[in-house]
Amino acid sequence: MDATTLPPDLRVAVVGVGVMGADHVERLATRTKFARVSVVNDFDTAKASRLAGTVPGCRAVEDPFEAITADDVDAVLLASPGRFHAEQVLAALEIGRPVLCEKPLALDPADALQVVRREAEHGSPLVSVGFMRRFDREHEELRASLAAGELGTPLMVHCKHRNASVPGHFDDRMMVYDSAVHEVDSVRYLLGEEIVSASVLKPTPSENAPAGLHDPMLVLFRTASGRVVTDELHLTTSAGYEVRTEVVGSRGSATIGLEVGRLTTQLPGGRWGGSVHADFRPRFRDAYDVQLQRWVDAVRRGEGVDPTSATAWDGYAAAVVCEATARALDTDGAPVPVELATRPPGPSSDHHEEQR
Amino acid sequence: MDATTLPPDLRVAVVGVGVMGADHVERLATRTKFARVSVVNDFDTAKASRLAGTVPGCRAVEDPFEAITADDVDAVLLASPGRFHAEQVLAALEIGRPVLCEKPLALDPADALQVVRREAEHGSPLVSVGFMRRFDREHEELRASLAAGELGTPLMVHCKHRNASVPGHFDDRMMVYDSAVHEVDSVRYLLGEEIVSASVLKPTPSENAPAGLHDPMLVLFRTASGRVVTDELHLTTSAGYEVRTEVVGSRGSATIGLEVGRLTTQLPGGRWGGSVHADFRPRFRDAYDVQLQRWVDAVRRGEGVDPTSATAWDGYAAAVVCEATARALDTDGAPVPVELATRPPGPSSDHHEEQR
Amino acid sequence: MDATTLPPDLRVAVVGVGVMGADHVERLATRTKFARVSVVNDFDTAKASRLAGTVPGCRAVEDPFEAITADDVDAVLLASPGRFHAEQVLAALEIGRPVLCEKPLALDPADALQVVRREAEHGSPLVSVGFMRRFDREHEELRASLAAGELGTPLMVHCKHRNASVPGHFDDRMMVYDSAVHEVDSVRYLLGEEIVSASVLKPTPSENAPAGLHDPMLVLFRTASGRVVTDELHLTTSAGYEVRTEVVGSRGSATIGLEVGRLTTQLPGGRWGGSVHADFRPRFRDAYDVQLQRWVDAVRRGEGVDPTSATAWDGYAAAVVCEATARALDTDGAPVPVELATRPPGPSSDHHEEQR
Amino acid sequence: MDATTLPPDLRVAVVGVGVMGADHVERLATRTKFARVSVVNDFDTAKASRLAGTVPGCRAVEDPFEAITADDVDAVLLASPGRFHAEQVLAALEIGRPVLCEKPLALDPADALQVVRREAEHGSPLVSVGFMRRFDREHEELRASLAAGELGTPLMVHCKHRNASVPGHFDDRMMVYDSAVHEVDSVRYLLGEEIVSASVLKPTPSENAPAGLHDPMLVLFRTASGRVVTDELHLTTSAGYEVRTEVVGSRGSATIGLEVGRLTTQLPGGRWGGSVHADFRPRFRDAYDVQLQRWVDAVRRGEGVDPTSATAWDGYAAAVVCEATARALDTDGAPVPVELATRPPGPSSDHHEEQR
Ligand SMILES: [Mg+2]
Ligand SMILES: [Mg+2]
Ligand SMILES: [Mg+2]
Ligand SMILES: [Mg+2]
Repeated sequence: MDATTLPPDLRVAVVGVGVMGADHVERLATRTKFARVSVVNDFDTAKASRLAGTVPGCRAVEDPFEAITADDVDAVLLASPGRFHAEQVLAALEIGRPVLCEKPLALDPADALQVVRREAEHGSPLVSVGFMRRFDREHEELRASLAAGELGTPLMVHCKHRNASVPGHFDDRMMVYDSAVHEVDSVRYLLGEEIVSASVLKPTPSENAPAGLHDPMLVLFRTASGRVVTDELHLTTSAGYEVRTEVVGSRGSATIGLEVGRLTTQLPGGRWGGSVHADFRPRFRDAYDVQLQRWVDAVRRGEGVDPTSATAWDGYAAAVVCEATARALDTDGAPVPVELATRPPGPSSDHHEEQR
Repeated sequence: MDATTLPPDLRVAVVGVGVMGADHVERLATRTKFARVSVVNDFDTAKASRLAGTVPGCRAVEDPFEAITADDVDAVLLASPGRFHAEQVLAALEIGRPVLCEKPLALDPADALQVVRREAEHGSPLVSVGFMRRFDREHEELRASLAAGELGTPLMVHCKHRNASVPGHFDDRMMVYDSAVHEVDSVRYLLGEEIVSASVLKPTPSENAPAGLHDPMLVLFRTASGRVVTDELHLTTSAGYEVRTEVVGSRGSATIGLEVGRLTTQLPGGRWGGSVHADFRPRFRDAYDVQLQRWVDAVRRGEGVDPTSATAWDGYAAAVVCEATARALDTDGAPVPVELATRPPGPSSDHHEEQR
Repeated sequence: MDATTLPPDLRVAVVGVGVMGADHVERLATRTKFARVSVVNDFDTAKASRLAGTVPGCRAVEDPFEAITADDVDAVLLASPGRFHAEQVLAALEIGRPVLCEKPLALDPADALQVVRREAEHGSPLVSVGFMRRFDREHEELRASLAAGELGTPLMVHCKHRNASVPGHFDDRMMVYDSAVHEVDSVRYLLGEEIVSASVLKPTPSENAPAGLHDPMLVLFRTASGRVVTDELHLTTSAGYEVRTEVVGSRGSATIGLEVGRLTTQLPGGRWGGSVHADFRPRFRDAYDVQLQRWVDAVRRGEGVDPTSATAWDGYAAAVVCEATARALDTDGAPVPVELATRPPGPSSDHHEEQR
Repeated sequence: MDATTLPPDLRVAVVGVGVMGADHVERLATRTKFARVSVVNDFDTAKASRLAGTVPGCRAVEDPFEAITADDVDAVLLASPGRFHAEQVLAALEIGRPVLCEKPLALDPADALQVVRREAEHGSPLVSVGFMRRFDREHEELRASLAAGELGTPLMVHCKHRNASVPGHFDDRMMVYDSAVHEVDSVRYLLGEEIVSASVLKPTPSENAPAGLHDPMLVLFRTASGRVVTDELHLTTSAGYEVRTEVVGSRGSATIGLEVGRLTTQLPGGRWGGSVHADFRPRFRDAYDVQLQRWVDAVRRGEGVDPTSATAWDGYAAAVVCEATARALDTDGAPVPVELATRPPGPSSDHHEEQR
């Protein structure tokens, strides 16, 4: 047998090479097997060109749609600003090209729903949404233990999402769309059912919070079967990044994200302890790697999406829940219902259904 | 010097010798220094007599008010059913006798308020309410660390209160009055401020819950300065007793009740772990001991109450918050305001104020 | 019934009121039920007088033997310097008076053996040695779990004994006689068998160690049935006090002394952690309280000693093991055998035997 | 730019495709970027052929030396039985081909030393030894914290190495050569200095141990600067795999391998806990992945070895220390000196020296 018979690497176009996109380029170029970056694009064309120059076999193009549809591209990774996502995903769908879209799929649920419907019309799944926690080992283990019934019936979920700090322009809506959105997906992923209402409690803000920001915030969700979810968002702890999830079940409760195992130290001054991750990148670096590898593997097998990944429907549901939550910022604690469209039959619906 | 010059032991009447009262008799008779049980009383007079026969220097009387006012009694410990508490406390107040009343001080806030006012008229503190967590070492340490500013400004509090099981007749109101009441006092003790509203979320119940019981339950409180408190009540875990409290502050968060320190074991079958307390007695045995010793010491010093203890006002506030919470069982998640009377000036108000 | 029919408190003489003795006086005077301090003695007579003046019903005497044998004394607590212990214990034995002797029972094994023999001649147990760890809840739980077979056959024990710092004059022998002695007793207590040899490894000392002190040090014991024990002594950590014991059994291993449960904090700068006890007093305060209460209770019941307590034989065995360990300081790692006399039949031998 | 200009993948020959080798083939074929398996070899030629048939572009050859020297091979991974390693490494060295050799480099130190000397003559490093813990994140973090002085001067190291069970033919020498060998390398890696003597204590064996096996076992090492290392080997725990390392330093102590962070559960029956890894593969899967990726990356950069990796000298030192430890099995606890040859100047010495 001869090396020329080896299947070629997947050629990926990366659209948007800001912090997250550049991180993905580096990942694809140095860690993801069977993949290479053939095209990059960014609004900042100079930046895209510079980056292309550092990656063998990669070129920069000025138009995102040219990147998405180029002949030397097999699949598309979108890390552009969220407001462009839906249109760019649709462009990939149009030519039947697999696309991994960083969250959010869309800010406007209507746009996300359009993606869901186009993909359903297409007849096989092509869209993945980058909720990376699904690929985190602890999240996978927790989901597996729930699926195996180890905790009995899940009854409640308690989430914590903490950051050291946020930019000065961060506002309450961003707490929902940038932070709580991850819990929205985690909870749907872990419980395998939809969220049906959201409410928000706003404690007196921390003195660390930028003016006008209600940090910390408590978001409450209710699911279709009546479960209750608490989500503490606290983004100005001055400490670090912490994502902790506890599922309370009828036969046991389990917590992930404790991170106590890393280092325990007895220190001068009479203290012991460990360190907190500085931000989400070290915490979820492995999850991002796994997500991308599994996506590349699935696409190369001709499956379009990896079954663990968030689907277009998941992206749509997240958009609807976030919109309800954002409205709940102004209802003084009263719940706002989440109203989902009917899910179209077809490709993007299989995985989630099976799991229930 | 001669032994007769030693100050005599405090003679305590114990009213009600069910599980809790008998426990207190045993404690006073065998562990609390400077105290002895001189009188016991119970509705079940035979039981009281039998118990008295086992305690040197102790007699049984048939009328609780006779026990409360007897000449050979210096102070009164009430462990009778809660509905009798207020009247019995008032009887002790009437003759200026110190009284430690197991929670609740009263079920009806009006009764508790009457106690507060009578004590205020009396002019010096005489009433302690048995919220024993205030005497738990971890609770005391947490309060001290808050007072020292170690966590910055407290922003939120997350409580968990879990039991292995409850009797078949347990109902939602008992979840409030028997369980959540402890968090009501803990939160007021830790934060040093009043709770101003309560709401209740009821997830789909556990299959372990007796019919009609909404277990688990999520109670939410808001405090006067705008802090938000979550209280997970889960009373049918089949596991054990767990009281965990996390205070989230602007410069750090702290958790008590982890109990990971007791035993870690690597076990056949690939598991490691420890044990959960079976119920509240082993968990809070030391706290009960400390509470009683400090009460005896304070009464013998002529101070009427120990400054750490919950006061009549704390008992009143707990009653009002529980009443609001019980009403919130029927408001579908909407908050119910807590309306406290004006606190009378005088003895029972000093401790709490100082701490703020 | 009348208070005069109550059994009187136990009248205790405390000999030696340095740090430890004064602590015991305070304990007996304020926390131990059924006990009072009737006599105190110290080489520093002014100090003893001042202390007596603060304790109702207590007088100071100038001669320790007068304290031990006084008419208004029911039992003796020895907290004098260790070199006087054996003679003072013998004085109490002479008149059949129960005595709780702080460790060591004697520095010279011959002196300890004399105590063992005199007590055996006396015919009922009177001597307790103050190894307080036996009364620590975690130690008791660990022993109970071993007795119940939860860990299968115990195979090895790993001990750590850490201090923040030691006085400048601390030397290698003191590491054995003041520190390792506690592990000697713990291991005998937990395993219920004798230590048969000791060896010492001396790593290059810490820069924190006073000149000439081999800190840290690794002591190795072998027991009669062939178990191996490691004891890390590290007394200049600059951190705090830490006593940790792991028993490795054929069906599980268990660790006590983790103390992770007390407080976990997320702190500015990206750290989480808790605090380490400053020294042995907060760590073992409860154990000292329990030890003294149980001793008082046992003596008042006429039993002479509490069955949990270390006996004269335990004190003798500790002295012999320490002597062998001290000799092993100079054998360059080679084990030194522990040679115990034949245990006399009689009172002090029953408890330990039963447990095996 | 054109895809043909992309640098080609590294073509690896895998020699020996038993459990470990097959695992490496799977890793190279599906997870390691920039690499592919071009040749496999095994004593069991049918097995090698079957495996080759599942890997695109891979062929099987019958002679290991043919695999090592084949034209379509850029680098060699040895997972053959340890007794063949040295000769096979020398064959790769002979033609200047990079080789990653699973531990051990050789059983006989003389063979390992020959490798060290041949590589030194070659003039640039080509040999890596597969001590995968060096690529474990916790080990890397601990080493970095030591290098940064966070723990002050390292004084002692405590290692635990536990397995659920071992095959019935496992003997004491295998406890040294298969298990303790990992601690030998870890300690040298963490401390950056040589081990100078070894001794062995053999407790009475566990009832779980196969006849004749001294399990558990305590190995003690002393390092060149006088540090003391304890290594508890316990291979029949019935529980799972546990590798724990504590470094005790003059300004703090740190432990890795706690794994408490994965899952904490409150369970029916009053227990909480988590799970222990079944064996070394899940525990060190990531480390194996990282090791192979970094090796491939380094070889493709023309550097021959990754600087984190164990070198031929490390493999030699491990062989010498294991030989001394094996002799110490029969010296009744007396230490056996480790006698290393003079390290040749040249390529394999740079990394380790720099770190000290
Ligand atoms: Mg994401
Ligand atoms: Mg209470
Ligand atoms: Mg002691
Ligand atoms: Mg290896």
